[in-house]
Amino acid sequence: MTSPTDVEFARELDRQDELAGFREAFVIDNPELIYLDGNSLGRLPKRTVERLRVVVEQEWGGRLVRGWNDGWFESPQRVGAKIAKLIGAEPDEVIVCDSTSVNLFKLVLATLQTHPDRRQVVSDELNFPSDLYVLQSVLRLVGPEYRLDLVRSADGMSISTDAVRSTVTSGTALVALSHVTFKSGFLYNMAAVTDLVHNAGSLVLWDLCHSIGVVPIDLKAAWVDLAVGCTYKYLNGGPGSPAFIYVRRNLQDQLTNPIWGWFGRRSQFEFGLDYEAAPGVRRFQTGTPPILSLAAVEPGLDLLLEAGVNRVRAKSLRQTEYLIDLWEQLLAPLGVTLNSPRNPAQRGSHVSLGHTEGLRVARLLIEEMQVIPDFRYPDNIRFGISPLYTSFVEIREALVRFQRVLAERIYEKYPLDHPAVT
Amino acid sequence: MTSPTDVEFARELDRQDELAGFREAFVIDNPELIYLDGNSLGRLPKRTVERLRVVVEQEWGGRLVRGWNDGWFESPQRVGAKIAKLIGAEPDEVIVCDSTSVNLFKLVLATLQTHPDRRQVVSDELNFPSDLYVLQSVLRLVGPEYRLDLVRSADGMSISTDAVRSTVTSGTALVALSHVTFKSGFLYNMAAVTDLVHNAGSLVLWDLCHSIGVVPIDLKAAWVDLAVGCTYKYLNGGPGSPAFIYVRRNLQDQLTNPIWGWFGRRSQFEFGLDYEAAPGVRRFQTGTPPILSLAAVEPGLDLLLEAGVNRVRAKSLRQTEYLIDLWEQLLAPLGVTLNSPRNPAQRGSHVSLGHTEGLRVARLLIEEMQVIPDFRYPDNIRFGISPLYTSFVEIREALVRFQRVLAERIYEKYPLDHPAVT
Repeated sequence: MTSPTDVEFARELDRQDELAGFREAFVIDNPELIYLDGNSLGRLPKRTVERLRVVVEQEWGGRLVRGWNDGWFESPQRVGAKIAKLIGAEPDEVIVCDSTSVNLFKLVLATLQTHPDRRQVVSDELNFPSDLYVLQSVLRLVGPEYRLDLVRSADGMSISTDAVRSTVTSGTALVALSHVTFKSGFLYNMAAVTDLVHNAGSLVLWDLCHSIGVVPIDLKAAWVDLAVGCTYKYLNGGPGSPAFIYVRRNLQDQLTNPIWGWFGRRSQFEFGLDYEAAPGVRRFQTGTPPILSLAAVEPGLDLLLEAGVNRVRAKSLRQTEYLIDLWEQLLAPLGVTLNSPRNPAQRGSHVSLGHTEGLRVARLLIEEMQVIPDFRYPDNIRFGISPLYTSFVEIREALVRFQRVLAERIYEKYPLDHPAVT
Repeated sequence: MTSPTDVEFARELDRQDELAGFREAFVIDNPELIYLDGNSLGRLPKRTVERLRVVVEQEWGGRLVRGWNDGWFESPQRVGAKIAKLIGAEPDEVIVCDSTSVNLFKLVLATLQTHPDRRQVVSDELNFPSDLYVLQSVLRLVGPEYRLDLVRSADGMSISTDAVRSTVTSGTALVALSHVTFKSGFLYNMAAVTDLVHNAGSLVLWDLCHSIGVVPIDLKAAWVDLAVGCTYKYLNGGPGSPAFIYVRRNLQDQLTNPIWGWFGRRSQFEFGLDYEAAPGVRRFQTGTPPILSLAAVEPGLDLLLEAGVNRVRAKSLRQTEYLIDLWEQLLAPLGVTLNSPRNPAQRGSHVSLGHTEGLRVARLLIEEMQVIPDFRYPDNIRFGISPLYTSFVEIREALVRFQRVLAERIYEKYPLDHPAVT
C-alpha cells in the first residue's frame, strides 16, 4: 500500500469512487484548476446551460408573458418540492423565494408575533453573521423587552448540545442555528437540539445553507419547525440563486408572513385591495420571483437526487477524512492548525485549516497556484468538498501545493496590499 | 391621405418612425405574433442572450467564485447607476435588489420609524394591489394607531391632484403612489403631487414599475424622496428580474433598512457579529443578489439609454393616440369603452379597453388570434405599447382582429371554463 501522500493512493481512491462519473455532469473547462470552494458557489452543471438556454430563448423569447402560465408560476413550488426530497420534508412544506436573509426575517418575526409571551431568541456565536444581523434587526422591531442570547463555543469551532440546553429557557421563543457553521464546518446534532428546544416549549429554525445537498437531513424525523437555506452551494444553483423556506405543515396557517405581497395572496389575480394570505406554504412568498435564477436551481437538484444524499455524504466523509490525514502529515508540522472538528459526526463537508499567514496563503493559492479555497478571518483557509465533482487527486494536489507554499515560504514574497479575499 | 384604419396609414407611420430600427435588437421568432404585453413582461433583447451566455458559461462556469470579485459584487450598484440615468437620479442614489414588494416594505417601514410622530400613510385605490398589501403589512407591524387612507378615484381611472391634497394631513408620514397605475395607465403629475406632499411636511414614495423606461422621470427636479420599481416591463429585464430602490442622497443615512443582512453591512467580509449599516444606498440591500437575473437587466437598459427616453415617450404618445383613434372608429361602436385617460398628459404607455366579455375576448385573442394583450378584472383588456419594438402596423392589426371578434361574435363560441388570464 502506498502512503496517503502519494498520488497513486489518491488515484486508487478515485477509481473506487462510485460517484466519480458525476464529475462529467459539470462544466470543467480548466482541468488544471482545483476548485475547493463549492461550499461558497457550486460549479455549473452542464444541464443548467441547456436549461437556461431554453428558459431564455424559448420561454422568455418565444412564449413571452405566457411563460408564467406554462410553468413559471408553479416553479417556486415545483423546485421547493424537489428540495423537500433532500431534507425529509413534504412537497407542500417548502417553497423557493427571496434570499436566505429575507426568508429568515420573515420566519423569525412571524414566530415572535405568534408567541408574544416569549421574549428570548437563541443563536450561537459561530452562526453566519448575516443570520445574526437578521435576528438583531427583528429584535430591533419587536422592542427592547426582547433579547438575543448567543451560545458560546468552548473551543472556537463547535457548540455543545449542553451549552444550547443551558441557554434555552422557558422564555425562549425561537432557537435559530446553522446546521453546519460557516467557518469551522461544525455539524449540529439536529435531532438532539430540536428535541431539547421542544422540551422547553420553544420552536427551532435551522439554516441549512451549509448542509443541504451534502449532509442527510430528515426534518420530519426530527419534527423540525422551520428552516431556511440557500441553493448556490452544494445544490449548484448559481450565484445568488433564490433561497427556500420550510415550514412544517401544521405551523403554516399559524404563522403570518410579515411582508405581504401578491405572490403570497390567495387568488393573486383577483387583485383585491385587501390582503388575504394564501393557504399553505405559498403565503411565505412576497413579490415576483427571479425566474432565470430560479430555473437554474432545478438541474443541480436533479443531479443530487440521482446521486442520493447518503452516497454523497459517504464520499464527503471519506474525502474530509483524507484531507485531514494529509493535513496531519503535510501541514501540521508546518504550524497549520485544524480549525474544524476532528470527529466526522460533527463535521459538514468543508474543512478549515488555520495559519497565521492564512490570508496571504489563500490569495497566493488562488492567484498563482491554481487552487481555489477561500478565506475567513482571522486565519481560516476553507477547503470545501463537493463530492459530485471533487476528486481525491485534487484534494491531495491542493494540500501538496499548500505545503510547498509554506515549506518554501513563497508567501513571504506575496504582496500584503491586495483586495480582501471573498 | 388614407384613413387611420387602413394598413397603408399604419405603414406610413412606421416608415416615419425614427426608433423603428430598435425592433431588430429584440428576439422576435414569430413575426405573426402581435405582442402587446410589454407592460407586463418586456421582450428579450438579443444582447441579453449573449450576455447571459457569458455570465453562465464564462463567469460562473469558468471563473467560479472569483466572479464575485470580477464584477458581480458591484453589479447592483452598476446596474443601479444606469437606472439612475433613466429617472434623473445620481448614480449613488439607486441600487438593484430584491423584489419591488420587499423594497417597498423596507422603505415604508424605515420611513415610519424615522417619523414616529406621524401616523398616517396615504395611497390610492388604483394602486397595484401588491403595493397596498405591503402597506397593510407594515401598518400591522407598527400598530393600531396607524392608518392607511386611500385616495378615491372619481372616474375609476384617474386620481385628481386635489383629491390627494385633501387626503394628506399634518399627520401624514408617507404618500406612496404608483407613477402610472397598473389598470388604467393613469399618469400622475409627479412634480405637483410631490410638492403638495412636501408642503404637508411628509415624504413621497413613487412606484415607477409602469413608467420607468417609457415616461421621462426626473426625480431630482421634483426632489422626490423615495422610489421603487421593477425592471421586467419596459426595461426588458426578464421574468421576475430584480427590482430597484432609490433613496435621495440626503435621506440615505437617516433611514434604517429594517431587514439587516450581510449585503447591507459595512465591510461585509469582516464578518463581525454585530450589524453596522453600510454607508449610502448599499445599506438597503439585504441578502445575496440573484446574479443571473440581475445580469439580464443590463442589456435592456443599455438599449433604452441609446434610444433616449424622450424619443421613446414621443413614440409612445403617437402610438397610444393612434390606438385610441382606432378604438374610436372600430371598437367604440361595438360597446367597447376607453378605460384609460383620454388626455395624453395623464397616460402612460398602456391603454385599457373595456368590454363586458373582456375575459373571454382577451383569452380568444391570445389563444386563437395571435394577439397578446392581458386582462385585468373586471373588464379591462390592456394593450401595452413598448415603443422599442411595437409597430403601428401591429397596433392596427390587433384592433382590427379585436373588432372582428366582436363584430362576428366569435367570443360566444369560446368556452367560459378556462383558466384565469394572467
